[in-house]
Amino acid sequence: MLTLYYARGTCALATHIALYDAGAEFEAKRLDFSKAEQRTPEYLKINPKGRVPVLVTERGVLSENPALLLYIAQTHPAAKLAPLDDPFALAEVQAFNAYLCATVHVAHAHRPRGSRWADEPSSLEDMKRKTPANMRDCFALIQRDLFRGPWAMGEAYSVVDPYLFTISTWLPTHGVDIAEFPALADHQKRMFERESVKRALAAEAA
Amino acid sequence: MLTLYYARGTCALATHIALYDAGAEFEAKRLDFSKAEQRTPEYLKINPKGRVPVLVTERGVLSENPALLLYIAQTHPAAKLAPLDDPFALAEVQAFNAYLCATVHVAHAHRPRGSRWADEPSSLEDMKRKTPANMRDCFALIQRDLFRGPWAMGEAYSVVDPYLFTISTWLPTHGVDIAEFPALADHQKRMFERESVKRALAAEAA
Repeated sequence: MLTLYYARGTCALATHIALYDAGAEFEAKRLDFSKAEQRTPEYLKINPKGRVPVLVTERGVLSENPALLLYIAQTHPAAKLAPLDDPFALAEVQAFNAYLCATVHVAHAHRPRGSRWADEPSSLEDMKRKTPANMRDCFALIQRDLFRGPWAMGEAYSVVDPYLFTISTWLPTHGVDIAEFPALADHQKRMFERESVKRALAAEAA
Repeated sequence: MLTLYYARGTCALATHIALYDAGAEFEAKRLDFSKAEQRTPEYLKINPKGRVPVLVTERGVLSENPALLLYIAQTHPAAKLAPLDDPFALAEVQAFNAYLCATVHVAHAHRPRGSRWADEPSSLEDMKRKTPANMRDCFALIQRDLFRGPWAMGEAYSVVDPYLFTISTWLPTHGVDIAEFPALADHQKRMFERESVKRALAAEAA
């Protein structure tokens, strides 16, 4: 049995969706970031980084979306969530997810969490002014160079899709309309219709 | 035959070292960032992100350190650079590398490349003032919670080691002495003595 720790509105949704895609047996536990529950001594014992997602397994605790998504794919091979027998194709999956993690999510984070990297109110405002352009640059690059369609990696759905979908739902917070990126708008629409996505969103909203 | 694109002083050193660790056949091509060679139309055709490292393979182009390091480990299994047959242990490797990529490297980048995320000179100065504390926080967490010793993941050397080593060599640019983190200072020292590290550093300095 796996336990997912998540918070609403965070990137943990990607792992949450993938767990449903995999048909995994899991329990989902919600942290309330508005109450700083990710900073309690109890949670910091589970994840010293004070972040989500975390997956508690029988062997121990795992964190970081790209690692969790690969782990879910590898431990649920029947769900075919990654090209597990093809190191090159798997590296393409991991490269896409690394870009989402280290560039796109980071670009986004400069709006809600700029205080990680600067202290002055004027700096935080400056960062916020820049996030729409950065998010547009990222999504333009994704549509032009990374996204294959109909799913992120082409014909086969993979663990890239829930991660791309999750971050795409943050675009409105930057005043960016996903309609600017038609292929990605179509992807988001089809993701919203997917059973795993509906179940994860319903669980997080409940 | 693989071709690595790198630039001096960048995180591409991690992949460069791992290629020597793996005994891979490869050619290394240097880009001069001071001449913006990562922004030429020719290079952007290879990597639209305009970044390094990139690995050109017979099947196509791969990027992003965590993906490249896993790819090198998977395609050179005899070198035993990752626990390839153990999804949980592999997820720990990928989680460590994702943290290095998306949190530690990003914390570092706010000194040399703050203009990615803000425009005003005062914001960039503010970011620079904050990087020493952020880098200390990251390395403290690594030493306390992630690093097992003698290598990053314990007794077995893995593709985490060259990545951790590479970022650790950037600490002086933040005025942080690795001696503050004795286990990581010892790791860095042993990495400097490793043949693969010597060869990669010599190639990049030549």
